[in-house]
Amino acid sequence: MTDLILDMCRKAKEASYKLAKLPTEAKNHALYNMAEALEKNAHKILGANRKDVEASRKRGVKTALIDRLILTEKRISNMAECLREVAELPDPVGEIVKTWTRPNGLIIGQLRVPLGVVALIYESRPDVTSDASGICLKSGNAVVLRGGSDAINSNIAIGEVLSEAAVESGISDGAIQVVPVTERGAAVELMGMREYVDVLIPRGGAGLIRTVVENSKIPVIETGTGNCHIYVEKDADLERAVDIIINAKCQRPGTCNSAEKVLVHRHVAAGFIPEAVKALRSQGVEVRGCDETRSIVTDVIPATEEDWYKEYLDLIIGFKVVGGVEEAIDHINKYGTHHSDVILTSDFNEALSFIRSVDSAAVYWNASTRFTDGNQYGLGAEIGISTQKIHARGPMSAQHLTTMKYFILGRGHIRE
Amino acid sequence: MTDLILDMCRKAKEASYKLAKLPTEAKNHALYNMAEALEKNAHKILGANRKDVEASRKRGVKTALIDRLILTEKRISNMAECLREVAELPDPVGEIVKTWTRPNGLIIGQLRVPLGVVALIYESRPDVTSDASGICLKSGNAVVLRGGSDAINSNIAIGEVLSEAAVESGISDGAIQVVPVTERGAAVELMGMREYVDVLIPRGGAGLIRTVVENSKIPVIETGTGNCHIYVEKDADLERAVDIIINAKCQRPGTCNSAEKVLVHRHVAAGFIPEAVKALRSQGVEVRGCDETRSIVTDVIPATEEDWYKEYLDLIIGFKVVGGVEEAIDHINKYGTHHSDVILTSDFNEALSFIRSVDSAAVYWNASTRFTDGNQYGLGAEIGISTQKIHARGPMSAQHLTTMKYFILGRGHIRE
Repeated sequence: MTDLILDMCRKAKEASYKLAKLPTEAKNHALYNMAEALEKNAHKILGANRKDVEASRKRGVKTALIDRLILTEKRISNMAECLREVAELPDPVGEIVKTWTRPNGLIIGQLRVPLGVVALIYESRPDVTSDASGICLKSGNAVVLRGGSDAINSNIAIGEVLSEAAVESGISDGAIQVVPVTERGAAVELMGMREYVDVLIPRGGAGLIRTVVENSKIPVIETGTGNCHIYVEKDADLERAVDIIINAKCQRPGTCNSAEKVLVHRHVAAGFIPEAVKALRSQGVEVRGCDETRSIVTDVIPATEEDWYKEYLDLIIGFKVVGGVEEAIDHINKYGTHHSDVILTSDFNEALSFIRSVDSAAVYWNASTRFTDGNQYGLGAEIGISTQKIHARGPMSAQHLTTMKYFILGRGHIRE
Repeated sequence: MTDLILDMCRKAKEASYKLAKLPTEAKNHALYNMAEALEKNAHKILGANRKDVEASRKRGVKTALIDRLILTEKRISNMAECLREVAELPDPVGEIVKTWTRPNGLIIGQLRVPLGVVALIYESRPDVTSDASGICLKSGNAVVLRGGSDAINSNIAIGEVLSEAAVESGISDGAIQVVPVTERGAAVELMGMREYVDVLIPRGGAGLIRTVVENSKIPVIETGTGNCHIYVEKDADLERAVDIIINAKCQRPGTCNSAEKVLVHRHVAAGFIPEAVKALRSQGVEVRGCDETRSIVTDVIPATEEDWYKEYLDLIIGFKVVGGVEEAIDHINKYGTHHSDVILTSDFNEALSFIRSVDSAAVYWNASTRFTDGNQYGLGAEIGISTQKIHARGPMSAQHLTTMKYFILGRGHIRE
């Protein structure tokens, strides 16, 4: 095992030095060829995917999870389309971000370069294999992909198709590699490859992310857990507030940018909560609430202390009545996951205070949490949504998989 | 123990929310008062420092290390001066870095904000306590300082003086805290405080840094190990090359930006190496070398494979003959620590290739490695020199202790 992972990471590192020097056209050419290869080899990928789906069914995996695993011709052409869109994005590599001259005549500059080798540890959805490969190649990084056991055959097939197409387009072998085994030991080995891997991105449920954060020796960018809040101020447009809550909760409840909690200003609670609960229930949402919420709508299920910390990823939502924007901010900073939080208000000062003080990657004024997404922000496809503060925060696209290098031009300068 | 560290980190987190909102003037006012307080309380600090120095002498600590520990009136006024310089720097917090409007009318922007709570684990030099406190306060961060046991009394005294002056200037209690115990357990506890601490910066020897990197649950910014190289190309100005090597090796051999290895192009090796070795030896430097170096200067000590990986931090240097810029790049990327590396050449293409391909935080053309320093770059005082790629690379000053937050302004927007 050690040798397998070690060899893969070494090979990725070697490839990364060549990738870093590739011109934009060479990378885009490969991305288009990779997209075409996915479509041409759809039969092979679908065959592998069927094995995964059958194995999952035999193990009694839930239908919702199997739905995420199943590939179709349509899903494969979406994957191909995503690669073409990544090709159309600007190339972040090679940009000279800044230069300045020191009093002693030294010229100092910052050059944008790839990170080097990116490793991804992720669960279920096999389209991540393709999307991540595209984003990493565009940003000049080699990638080592370690997907979940559910999708192992699909991931290996997608990886082979992409890697072959990349190599045929002149990209170094080793630039795109799928770990072909599912033993837990492989992930542990990968997390120790600090010498060869520059950043490790976990993508999946809270358990996976915690395991990676606590065990990795490689710098990690934490992604994705979203206990997102919507705070309804006393002077919010209450009718529109219901629409926004419904959108944020129900449009795709299994995603990290869905709303999980609603905080309501006491002054409007009695009028607003019954309307909101009615609308949510009509969409099949279970509502839990604080005591004050339950004094307004008595059949709301009581929320426990634990509820306030929870990311349901389901048709469940928690309501809490608060005394004002300060209490809302404190609640969000204490119980939230620093992902996406919203204030609904017509008051500019309240909005400004909320935006400044809520300690989250994305803070919204009068909009749905569902916009936290690379494409919605105009950044292109994303490799994950960072909820930590170092390096990148929020949706991470190709540009966030780069770093800067100082270059210093002297004329024989020595330090006095 | 757990309670002590936990309480400190919680208090730091609370303080950080208030610090994040402070106007520049309030922070600068506090920094000037802190500088004055250091000078006024020099007697108290020097008294505490004497205890540390005596204890170290009793334990038989090396003179060189004791020299780094000893404070004087002059060193304290240097610490005060550093705080005043930090006050003069631009405030990185609050900058709106970018805004754009999406086709649906959503306005998206990025706001620069503090990281929150910074923890520092460091060795010996007590002036780090003051410098780091200043940089963190300027950038709106609370700081938890865990210095080495050698300097515990000095660190506590400096921390008390600074914290009192900060609180008297209106800064929240908890913004500057020195861990008052030296048990190893305290550092381990601190490394687990992911809920309250946003980034952990280790500063010290390779052993300390490795321990932190391998054990921290908090995101780490790795600093400081510098196995720095100077590559002498065949068309370098060889006379100036000797000056640069002497400067890079001898000016302050104990610092991470000192040169540890010289790579020499085969075409000029026979002429250049004897001159360079002679000059280095006249400064008391021990020279080690590859077989080819030793065939030119026979009494050079043989370098082992291990030597090529080593950061000597001492008057020792390694010489290796190489066939050209590609071999030099490969050697540096394999054996180096990604800190600072130099090419000496008059050939623009060779320089460009070196700058693009050497995978280090700072890459120099015709200058000494000794310039890798916040002040030398014009960035102001630094909290460390990052040798990892994520978040910040190279000298880290106040601006690097910030992150960006997305703010999104809608008019009732929902996602279609």
